[in-house]
Amino acid sequence: MGSKDSKNAGSFTLPGELGYEDLTLKMAKKWGADIIRDSDGTILSDEILNAGYGIYSTICIIRDHNEWARKNMDKLQQTFLMTSPKVAESTAMTIDLMEDFFKDQFMINASKESMKYWQVYDRTNNEMLPSDQWSYHQEEQSITINQMKPWHKYTVSFMAYRIWEEISMYNHTTNNWNKEHLMQLDPRYQETQEFMLEWMDQWCKTHPDTTVVRFTSMFYNFVWIWGSNSRNQYLYSDWGSYDFTVSPLALDEFSKQYGYTLTAEDFINKGKLNVTHMPANQKKLDWMKFIHDFVIVFGKKLIDVVHKYGKQAYVFYDDSWIGIEPYSKRFKEFGFDGIIKCVFSGFEARLCAGVDVPVHELRLHPYLFPVGLGGAPTFMEGGNPTLDAKKFWNSIRRALLREPVERIGLGGYLHLVEPYPKFCDYIEKIADEFRTIKEFHKAGKPMTLKPKIAILTAWGSLRSWTLSGHFHETHMHELIHINESLSGSPFEVMFISFEDVKQGALKQADVVINAGFAGSAWSGAQHWKEEEIVSIITEWVHDGGAFIGVNEPSALDGYDTYFRMSHILGVDMDNGARVCHGKWELNEQQISGLIVKGSTFKSKEHIYLTDNKTKVLAQINELPVLTSYDFGRGRGIYMSSFETNLANTRTLINIILYACKEKLLQEYMTDNAKTECAYYPESKTLVVINNSEEKQSTGILTEKGKVELEIKAYDTIMIGL
Amino acid sequence: MGSKDSKNAGSFTLPGELGYEDLTLKMAKKWGADIIRDSDGTILSDEILNAGYGIYSTICIIRDHNEWARKNMDKLQQTFLMTSPKVAESTAMTIDLMEDFFKDQFMINASKESMKYWQVYDRTNNEMLPSDQWSYHQEEQSITINQMKPWHKYTVSFMAYRIWEEISMYNHTTNNWNKEHLMQLDPRYQETQEFMLEWMDQWCKTHPDTTVVRFTSMFYNFVWIWGSNSRNQYLYSDWGSYDFTVSPLALDEFSKQYGYTLTAEDFINKGKLNVTHMPANQKKLDWMKFIHDFVIVFGKKLIDVVHKYGKQAYVFYDDSWIGIEPYSKRFKEFGFDGIIKCVFSGFEARLCAGVDVPVHELRLHPYLFPVGLGGAPTFMEGGNPTLDAKKFWNSIRRALLREPVERIGLGGYLHLVEPYPKFCDYIEKIADEFRTIKEFHKAGKPMTLKPKIAILTAWGSLRSWTLSGHFHETHMHELIHINESLSGSPFEVMFISFEDVKQGALKQADVVINAGFAGSAWSGAQHWKEEEIVSIITEWVHDGGAFIGVNEPSALDGYDTYFRMSHILGVDMDNGARVCHGKWELNEQQISGLIVKGSTFKSKEHIYLTDNKTKVLAQINELPVLTSYDFGRGRGIYMSSFETNLANTRTLINIILYACKEKLLQEYMTDNAKTECAYYPESKTLVVINNSEEKQSTGILTEKGKVELEIKAYDTIMIGL
Repeated sequence: MGSKDSKNAGSFTLPGELGYEDLTLKMAKKWGADIIRDSDGTILSDEILNAGYGIYSTICIIRDHNEWARKNMDKLQQTFLMTSPKVAESTAMTIDLMEDFFKDQFMINASKESMKYWQVYDRTNNEMLPSDQWSYHQEEQSITINQMKPWHKYTVSFMAYRIWEEISMYNHTTNNWNKEHLMQLDPRYQETQEFMLEWMDQWCKTHPDTTVVRFTSMFYNFVWIWGSNSRNQYLYSDWGSYDFTVSPLALDEFSKQYGYTLTAEDFINKGKLNVTHMPANQKKLDWMKFIHDFVIVFGKKLIDVVHKYGKQAYVFYDDSWIGIEPYSKRFKEFGFDGIIKCVFSGFEARLCAGVDVPVHELRLHPYLFPVGLGGAPTFMEGGNPTLDAKKFWNSIRRALLREPVERIGLGGYLHLVEPYPKFCDYIEKIADEFRTIKEFHKAGKPMTLKPKIAILTAWGSLRSWTLSGHFHETHMHELIHINESLSGSPFEVMFISFEDVKQGALKQADVVINAGFAGSAWSGAQHWKEEEIVSIITEWVHDGGAFIGVNEPSALDGYDTYFRMSHILGVDMDNGARVCHGKWELNEQQISGLIVKGSTFKSKEHIYLTDNKTKVLAQINELPVLTSYDFGRGRGIYMSSFETNLANTRTLINIILYACKEKLLQEYMTDNAKTECAYYPESKTLVVINNSEEKQSTGILTEKGKVELEIKAYDTIMIGL
Repeated sequence: MGSKDSKNAGSFTLPGELGYEDLTLKMAKKWGADIIRDSDGTILSDEILNAGYGIYSTICIIRDHNEWARKNMDKLQQTFLMTSPKVAESTAMTIDLMEDFFKDQFMINASKESMKYWQVYDRTNNEMLPSDQWSYHQEEQSITINQMKPWHKYTVSFMAYRIWEEISMYNHTTNNWNKEHLMQLDPRYQETQEFMLEWMDQWCKTHPDTTVVRFTSMFYNFVWIWGSNSRNQYLYSDWGSYDFTVSPLALDEFSKQYGYTLTAEDFINKGKLNVTHMPANQKKLDWMKFIHDFVIVFGKKLIDVVHKYGKQAYVFYDDSWIGIEPYSKRFKEFGFDGIIKCVFSGFEARLCAGVDVPVHELRLHPYLFPVGLGGAPTFMEGGNPTLDAKKFWNSIRRALLREPVERIGLGGYLHLVEPYPKFCDYIEKIADEFRTIKEFHKAGKPMTLKPKIAILTAWGSLRSWTLSGHFHETHMHELIHINESLSGSPFEVMFISFEDVKQGALKQADVVINAGFAGSAWSGAQHWKEEEIVSIITEWVHDGGAFIGVNEPSALDGYDTYFRMSHILGVDMDNGARVCHGKWELNEQQISGLIVKGSTFKSKEHIYLTDNKTKVLAQINELPVLTSYDFGRGRGIYMSSFETNLANTRTLINIILYACKEKLLQEYMTDNAKTECAYYPESKTLVVINNSEEKQSTGILTEKGKVELEIKAYDTIMIGL
């Protein structure tokens, strides 16, 4: 193994590059790499392969097999699609199935097996038409519907093959590639499985230097439906959804196994599809289980091949990750040796760190590409990769102080770093810092504050930390902001479902957070119908628990209040039925030290106090934005919104402490919200970080007195106590 | 009859005042009064009574009978009340019934007849408790509940007498009166009816000079529930609600007549009560019909007494107006000779003008009181009654140009005007102007533009023009803003229900406006479930109709789109299920002359285009606020909001013309949005008004060329053409 020095090297994956052997080995030494990887599209030379490093290779098992795919077009992956609603002007109408969709991505599957799953719906009265009322025209790729009710609107749900693997499609169209379109194989078919197992075996045989095989990822991509019009390019994209797992064969097998048949409508859902942000019904949960089971069983066979060759198998936690479900209790059955996650945010670092697998590795940003994901320059004129690296590390670091991962690494084209020596120095600093923090964790956990937090959602632990994808894809949901703030907070955090509540999960929790819009999986929707849930949480708060509700917590139609926990929160939301009711005047009462300077709130209309006892801790234009309600020995807190930033993060920590009736500024907390710290008792070390872009002065009370220091922008200071 | 001069007098009601006989007669002459009234609390002297004027006296039949009331406390009016929800901490609990309520207003009715209607509810699971699980303690005015489910919340619905007539209670508490509390009698009881008929007869006998008896109003006040805490004084107030009409006797009679029994919960509705802004269910409609029937039948008996004495009977359209329903088809059965409405806004003038009754009279503001309704000074230091009068007249005048009323008048203490000669001059000007406009109407209707407008709501014509009370009470609803703007617009306006749509009402309409929040009576709520409604409107638009939707038009859960008419509007609203769906880019296309300078829009989140064809006419921060969608020969328009002001009113008129594919600036429209005009073809007169507080230049195309003029603030100019 290559090494920097015996004390401080390893745990770092470097992207090697053919033709830059010297640079590769030089940077490997500088950054303390122990493994060299081939990035997508790069190949490693013998010089690198023989330098004593671990070698890590990426494979994507479902694509890069176009020759076989072309001979087996009936074994490509599929999806259901629905035409946009058309209003009938008479009793008959012809609908062009592919009008809305990107023809390079989809190809209609009009086989007999497929067509039995097609459906035509009258969407005006929610009625499915009998199949003798419509007919398919192969040539025109259209459906003619008869006996229509004039002025009703109709849709066709049909099945299509996906003929261009979405991740390569994206890279292709974004970077104007001019390569063959890669198709994705569906391992649901016996023949595909045989082909893949054989291919995997051959691959292992022909890659003797590879020590780690990285799967990208298993079989089924998150859903990403492209449209035919450039004004609406992405019709639907959900990182957590299972739409791309269907096929007539899978549906038939499901039917046999579960004793009931799923229809197109179970996936299409009136054209809304079943987005992760909404709670899943039992049919969707059954389907997820069915797919998860398949991905485990066949995935394990591939992993066994890798292991047979003495190699390790890591999985990339993205792209075709559907059905892998690293937070499922069955995930261990795969036998993966490690998991790799590319990270922009603290919650993603925690998402990776929390998986039950031996090795967790973070792929840091910026990637070594000329431009970043958003299209801004990185390693080219106008870019500042060192500042980018500082900002990304800044987001990740606070999470890594709380929960360890084993490895970090970079991706991309190594030669791009050559003109940026400051970047190379900064990555060396990060790598060293990372290895030091890892050692602290090895010695013992960092100190946490007393309150243990349970995030209550319809998904529970299955969607720990993430909602569905990156921060920028989910920023409209309060919970991702809360997760991001909590990812580096001095609290233990768990993610629980409503079923967990019934099984006694609250015994382990001091605070329950329920955050989201009404009807969402995050708020809980129909789960709040169960009186048992309401009663259990009510009693638990009465006995001293703290319930924090954000936006539309516990919201459900059909009861005297819209928020089912309004009697704990002291606030409710009016959906219009109370527009003529009087409202309690808001008397704002400020709690000293609770709301950090610079904190921001956003008011929400129609929120009203249910009780004279409700304390308004902050209000905007006569709308309560932060309230507190004492109930028994416990407390309910309502926040109309939450957005993550440095001040709000500290205010959230304060609110959690206040909700639990704990002292606000405690030992081993910084007195400056732009800085944070973690104390490792076993290592007797205090790590202080500056999360801001400016120098800060900060002070920390410790058992041995107050530490006061100045800390540079984005910097880390470690102090032995 | 007193007169100013033969040509220009009459149609004016003056408040006479005892001790100011000279002033009364002087002002009567100046203002051209033909009737002198006694305001509440004033008595007219013989000098006035004998001066040849019509004499108009106010009576309130249900109050001012405290002696009889004290002997018949079981015949006072009543209401249902619900205690606020209490969480059970064990299996038993005692609830103080009157804790939340103003004890001067309510007195528990714990008679056997009443208690059979009481209900105790577990609000956590929406279950009514059997009556053997609770018991009432007379002394403590409390209920003890047993066999409770701990941590569920409970409410008690009970019946209470109202022991202080609400209008006098308000005047009493606001003006710190120290008089006996007036109680209100319920004419539901035979004995009360006999008492009232006898009293009415006596009253007529003892008031020979009175020519017009004004009823204030009939029997039942709109609901106004006061609380026990000054931080939440008015627990519930709804100008259109029937909560104050209940009694055990009425409920028993209803049960006999309708074959089913209403319960407390039918009124209490989980504590929300049944506000006018939400659609009524069949039970509420039955109850309204039941009360309306009673008010007509017994009311007519009182009116017959008045007529027997050769007097006229007018009704005041406010206060105890519940059950009168001037927009019901049965209203004529009362036999009223006139209706009187006090008006602040244009829509109230139209509300009065549209009633099918011989005489419509407006009570203008300001009232001759030292302070106005909002508490601001009027006829006292710091007040400017002339400016107040100009502003009020400004709101009313544009409506009166469109639809005539027969009379106007003032109320209050006449002596207060003495120090304000300019006010007296201005009222003279108003009175003259009013009489002139009345003459124009008599000669023939003002010209209107082609489009005929139908406002579609769950209430239809029953709640024409008003929603429920004054503008300031209903300003949060878009429809009152639209009604106010339309009240002076050059369009015919009708108010239709969903049933009317089925009966073919759209044949008379060019534009349908549906405006309100989801679930409200104004948007339509469950009425949109009927596919027939959706189909009829769809076909009608296809054939050339225009559908204008505002805020959450046609919104209903359970379909592929939230707006049932999204296929006509080209927009829909996402309730969260489409958070992962792509959105059509907004390409704003401006229509020349459509949006008047100074117009304001408010964006609404979660509105998205359903179609590439949708034209965005205005957007704010990537949210469409005004869109247009061509469907067949017709057009759908979506507006995210509407607020009435001069610029927005004209923009609305333009939008209506655009929706109907009519030319925007037509003949007999001013080219300055701060001015308006009305043309009376039979009188060959153009009336131009300045609605602004500044001088304006304006131009009007007419058949005889363009009229251009300057007009002073708030002024009226009449031009013969």
